[in-house]
Amino acid sequence: MTILIKSVLTEHGIKDVLIVGNKIAQIGDKINIEAEEIIDGKNKAILPSFFNGHTHLAMTLFRSLADDMALKPWLEEKIWPLEAKLTEEDVYWGTKLACLELIRSGTTTFIDMYHHFNGIARAVDEMGLRGIISQASFDFSDEGLKEKVKKDVEWAFEECKRYSDRITIALGPHAIYTVSEASLVWLKDFADKKNLLLNIHLSETEEEVNNSIEKNGLTPTGYLEKIGFFGANVVASHCLHLTDDDIAILAKRNVKVIHNPISNMKLASGDSFRFFDLVNAGVTIGFGTDGASSSNNHDILEVAKMASLKQKAKLNNPATLPAREAFSFVTDSSESITGMKIGKMAEGYLADLCLLDLRIPEMMPNHNFVSNLVYSANGMAVDTVICDGKILMKNRIIPGAEEILDKIPEVIQDWLSR
Amino acid sequence: MTILIKSVLTEHGIKDVLIVGNKIAQIGDKINIEAEEIIDGKNKAILPSFFNGHTHLAMTLFRSLADDMALKPWLEEKIWPLEAKLTEEDVYWGTKLACLELIRSGTTTFIDMYHHFNGIARAVDEMGLRGIISQASFDFSDEGLKEKVKKDVEWAFEECKRYSDRITIALGPHAIYTVSEASLVWLKDFADKKNLLLNIHLSETEEEVNNSIEKNGLTPTGYLEKIGFFGANVVASHCLHLTDDDIAILAKRNVKVIHNPISNMKLASGDSFRFFDLVNAGVTIGFGTDGASSSNNHDILEVAKMASLKQKAKLNNPATLPAREAFSFVTDSSESITGMKIGKMAEGYLADLCLLDLRIPEMMPNHNFVSNLVYSANGMAVDTVICDGKILMKNRIIPGAEEILDKIPEVIQDWLSR
Repeated sequence: MTILIKSVLTEHGIKDVLIVGNKIAQIGDKINIEAEEIIDGKNKAILPSFFNGHTHLAMTLFRSLADDMALKPWLEEKIWPLEAKLTEEDVYWGTKLACLELIRSGTTTFIDMYHHFNGIARAVDEMGLRGIISQASFDFSDEGLKEKVKKDVEWAFEECKRYSDRITIALGPHAIYTVSEASLVWLKDFADKKNLLLNIHLSETEEEVNNSIEKNGLTPTGYLEKIGFFGANVVASHCLHLTDDDIAILAKRNVKVIHNPISNMKLASGDSFRFFDLVNAGVTIGFGTDGASSSNNHDILEVAKMASLKQKAKLNNPATLPAREAFSFVTDSSESITGMKIGKMAEGYLADLCLLDLRIPEMMPNHNFVSNLVYSANGMAVDTVICDGKILMKNRIIPGAEEILDKIPEVIQDWLSR
Repeated sequence: MTILIKSVLTEHGIKDVLIVGNKIAQIGDKINIEAEEIIDGKNKAILPSFFNGHTHLAMTLFRSLADDMALKPWLEEKIWPLEAKLTEEDVYWGTKLACLELIRSGTTTFIDMYHHFNGIARAVDEMGLRGIISQASFDFSDEGLKEKVKKDVEWAFEECKRYSDRITIALGPHAIYTVSEASLVWLKDFADKKNLLLNIHLSETEEEVNNSIEKNGLTPTGYLEKIGFFGANVVASHCLHLTDDDIAILAKRNVKVIHNPISNMKLASGDSFRFFDLVNAGVTIGFGTDGASSSNNHDILEVAKMASLKQKAKLNNPATLPAREAFSFVTDSSESITGMKIGKMAEGYLADLCLLDLRIPEMMPNHNFVSNLVYSANGMAVDTVICDGKILMKNRIIPGAEEILDKIPEVIQDWLSR
């Protein structure tokens, strides 16, 4: 498949962009090639599509079910009992709904963590997105569950081979307070042997930090360092309550950190993310939405805006974390986090791109379209999305969307009446 | 004109809603009346349309022109020199563009402050919105400008009579550091005599507070109290750096306070809004976006979400300022602020309403549509907008929008090359 996007606004002026197969083949002033599909770039801008470093996609099913609750009753009375009743089919439909949102807001690659691997993988594969899907692991230090963690991971690793190249498995030890040291070490070894990412929640709450210090005499980061868990394949989400030593460890081990400011504020997990301390230490940061029960949508541009606003307010300086820099954490930094050739408009990179509609009021006037995108328009400015060289949405229409929207009320009714 | 909205989801279940003239005539289980227009409420929810308490609509023209700058160079090098070159016609088109945004995101009433009264009033009147338009006053304590302030206000007061009942004039002394005591007192008297709102920026920055203490021996609030400026018709925006005494004064005088958290963060004006101290003192609060050069859009739902998230984070409690309560500051509180019968779905209230599309992914599943609207969907969920009994947008189509979007690039080019 070849796609030629004619006369589209890029960050370096009006260009033609040629896609051959699943890659960006050429970006030039005038490309005269017979392409199978030609897209008129008039009144459009093009950017690499976006990366969401932390999701629980199927939790769209929980959206607006239990907002504004304190953490403990939220988890114990709502999330956990209802999660236990979810089937693979529910997870499939919840993930499909989330994929609609991701596409509508321009995200094509994400790191997910949830249960029912095949439910997630099948949905993401069908929707055409690039998914890094973590098999969620919990053992609560129970011996039987430790064995189950291993079996589930080995099973999911094999299952993953059934899907396209866009579907990658990652390992997902949930957190240090839900996974035993033995399982953490086993998962780390498995990930290293198979060259997989390791995705973990880290220092999300003060309680987690205090409990770790009490139990291990170490912060969560210090503890993971001690057991040899860290490496360049570790992606740690939240990281809200870090000491200077923690930051030095994360930098030394080249751990990637995902910042989820909207989730952190909504759950009141802590308002203390040390953004520039991490950046200055050389830690690669990405942004995440988290699940729709805490965030509550999958528009990563909203997260970029929030991250920028929070740092401006915190440092008392409106020049802090300007739009293009905030935007780089949902594009440029994704290559280093995932190891994939994504997040850049350059020849040889994967053809994961989105076209923005410059004719909506929120994108006008166009003094600076990246600034408009981050501060004014959010994901609704995304008009067309291409992933792996295939068009997933054109003029805001996603084939198959109606079937998903029709199905959701039925899924919800079955689940809650179970 | 009669409009009957059939079988639409309200906060109290599925209802029929009848609009006669510019008022909500009836809300009932089954209304069998021949209406001139019938709207099918299937897959839709209805709410009162929203109120934006602080705008500078025409500043859409500045959107993305000068983001991420420190306050002083931003004002001195960008905003002020370029504002000086704006004509009434520019203000008309900039306001029209902002009106498109307001309608698209469900806002029908707002308090604006800017220059070129007729440019604003003509645009708002044509667009069908309910505008409270403050004639911006600055005199910098210059004797000639003091006279000009009076003349301009008297002129705008007369001009306003040319427009429909939806257009109201308010007085807009910009701030205590740009308007002399003599003019503040004159404006206060004029407002009281003519029964007008008085709209002022108050305690937006620490510098304003420190300068006032140095010059007047009083905080800005203390100073305005001393000169007798306050009353129930005063709407004060920002109010970021308040003492306990300031809050007691605002409460005692029944001053209305507009909270603009996104603008305050983006300009790093201060992160210290005493939300619950004001609420607990009995002060009526509304939310505002501020102008698009600092905010950068007019989606008031984004402001409601931000206000809620900020208070959850600040008070370290996810149950703080829940969705429906946050939403009340863009609906319920507008009646008390404006003195108009708006912001409520009740018989006899003005027919200022919006219909939400419950079939977009961000509004699904529908466990709680107000929660979805505030935390997940933002203004893009608004499908149909009615103001003063007239349909301004239906199925997201606003008649005349294309002409405005066509015109903006031309307006920008003329303005910047002047």
